[in-house]
Amino acid sequence: MIVAANSVRFGSLSLDSGATLSPVEVAYETYGRLNAAKSNAILVLHAFSGDAHAAGLDPDTDKPGWWDNMIGPGKAFDTDKYFVICSNVLGGCRGTTGPSSINPATSCPYAMAFPVITIGDMVRLQKMLIDWFGIPRLLTVTGGSMGGMQALEWAVSYPDRVVSAIPIASTARHSAQQIAFNEVGRQAIMADPNWNGGNYYDKQPPARGLAVARMVGHITYMSDESMREKFGRRLRGKEAFGFAFDVDFEVESYLRYRGSQFVNRFDANSYLYITKAMDYFDLTAGQRSLGEALAPARARFLAISFSSDWLYPSYQSQELVRALRARNSDVAYVELQSNYGHDSFLVAVEEQADLVRGFLGSIFEKLS
Amino acid sequence: MIVAANSVRFGSLSLDSGATLSPVEVAYETYGRLNAAKSNAILVLHAFSGDAHAAGLDPDTDKPGWWDNMIGPGKAFDTDKYFVICSNVLGGCRGTTGPSSINPATSCPYAMAFPVITIGDMVRLQKMLIDWFGIPRLLTVTGGSMGGMQALEWAVSYPDRVVSAIPIASTARHSAQQIAFNEVGRQAIMADPNWNGGNYYDKQPPARGLAVARMVGHITYMSDESMREKFGRRLRGKEAFGFAFDVDFEVESYLRYRGSQFVNRFDANSYLYITKAMDYFDLTAGQRSLGEALAPARARFLAISFSSDWLYPSYQSQELVRALRARNSDVAYVELQSNYGHDSFLVAVEEQADLVRGFLGSIFEKLS
Repeated sequence: MIVAANSVRFGSLSLDSGATLSPVEVAYETYGRLNAAKSNAILVLHAFSGDAHAAGLDPDTDKPGWWDNMIGPGKAFDTDKYFVICSNVLGGCRGTTGPSSINPATSCPYAMAFPVITIGDMVRLQKMLIDWFGIPRLLTVTGGSMGGMQALEWAVSYPDRVVSAIPIASTARHSAQQIAFNEVGRQAIMADPNWNGGNYYDKQPPARGLAVARMVGHITYMSDESMREKFGRRLRGKEAFGFAFDVDFEVESYLRYRGSQFVNRFDANSYLYITKAMDYFDLTAGQRSLGEALAPARARFLAISFSSDWLYPSYQSQELVRALRARNSDVAYVELQSNYGHDSFLVAVEEQADLVRGFLGSIFEKLS
Repeated sequence: MIVAANSVRFGSLSLDSGATLSPVEVAYETYGRLNAAKSNAILVLHAFSGDAHAAGLDPDTDKPGWWDNMIGPGKAFDTDKYFVICSNVLGGCRGTTGPSSINPATSCPYAMAFPVITIGDMVRLQKMLIDWFGIPRLLTVTGGSMGGMQALEWAVSYPDRVVSAIPIASTARHSAQQIAFNEVGRQAIMADPNWNGGNYYDKQPPARGLAVARMVGHITYMSDESMREKFGRRLRGKEAFGFAFDVDFEVESYLRYRGSQFVNRFDANSYLYITKAMDYFDLTAGQRSLGEALAPARARFLAISFSSDWLYPSYQSQELVRALRARNSDVAYVELQSNYGHDSFLVAVEEQADLVRGFLGSIFEKLS
């Protein structure tokens, strides 16, 4: 399955901050075919550092999409049956308008003149894309981590437009610890002199700051146990300690490599804006109960969490599920056993795939 | 209890790396009085960012010591009964020789010419201090976190010199995740241009890099739950989101403040050297079982861990305790319930104090 990237441009987008962005471009990929009734569309929502390339092989890089093990012919999101759409989020750096896009007012990149955005804003833009496709109702909205937040936002903001929602390894509101880890990443970027107030697009980007931010991220995506299994205390390319500050341990080498590579595919300002949107995310808006916040939702829910995920721990999914159950919403919940930590939704997909396949199948049957 | 800081200078110290350091100064404080039999001495070992000021009020700053709630008249380490010693670790920046000390070969600070050190080196220097005091055997060696590592090293390296050991919230070897968090801190410091290869002592220190490193540290010292209780999603000095990148949340404000203050009391190069020593720490040296590594130890042990400590999780203390029990060592172990995460050994001390008081009392009685 070779895929092609597409994009649509819209005139303007109103934001939660009160600002308006215009124009707005949204990059997307699709897999499978939209049926005549337009009833088989699935919107897949990517996590923080993901993009629209969710499945298949990128024709330029030959890289599989980030959820390629879940999306394709015969897979959980079966492209022989369903039409799958994935778009790059607002504020991103992979085709959708974000801080690295040209600001029409200045003909220069927005940089920090880009307005601060929310998960609600991301979803509002996705809704415009779904309208543009002429799709009346999405069979499901789904994603892991920040993707799950968008799925919840969809279910609450556009209840008549989603038949079901599958939030995975996610939360109804960012916790103090989740905010704290994001803030460390932002401070690491902003501490890099090359960040330069966000104005680096014609210069060296803040590569070292972004690398440090990414290193923190990678630790939080893995579990203590998966790090032990993958690296333990193994030394890298030496048989004894080096008694110096170059790499001693495999885990150091891995983090340094992943950190340094990230700058090639991600924009530091997008890091700032997207993490801020996650931190702002709180379905209750700090003012109502989660049950009240979920009151508009009509979707059937399947929530999934992973036993070793300490960044988006199971109790956050369970809090969501309890609030939905208390409203007599139709909600299924499974905590899957996995050692892979938060990365589980990308990696340990066998049981996840079975759950999703069964859930989708039953919903699609009822519709047909 | 007003305390005075002292120091002793030794001619030289042989290091695990093969290097020799000379001279070596060690800063210490003492509380209580050494008895005539010199049988009531307790060596308290500080954690990563601690120092020799463990108890009482600093005469200059009026600040209480970092374990003041545990050390003093009538407290767990009862200075009416015991003589308590605490010294700043080798590689530190609070009076003991470290990278900010003057290198006699150049008359400039060592900076990165300081040799890489180990927990074993720290303990070797402490042993010289105890010899200098003329103390034949320590009633106990104790500390939390890195302090606990030193206590274990003492018990194994100088079995005839310690009657008991109380490692708290600690481990017999640093895990991949623990190494990973330390490596992020080091990279944050070394990414700061002001770090300048370690040569900043006559210039601006790498304040922003050190602040980012410290922010990561603070997150790992707290638990998810204690962060929620202390900060939740409360906003700082505003009633609604600022839609900008200055502080929105209390937790951001706290981390930025604690990060920025750290540079006033801690040297960035000491951060590098001391975290490296922790990462190298492995009683098994990667070559033998933990039981074999502990074979020389003769001390009675009291190990304590905390239920919400995810940086030095209980399983690490339990691994140690199992290995000791398998050798028929005299070891007591308690996992204390606490929400404070790794900080518990500094904060939630009531039960810890009772445990330590009882353990020490029974040991001291037998000696007398």
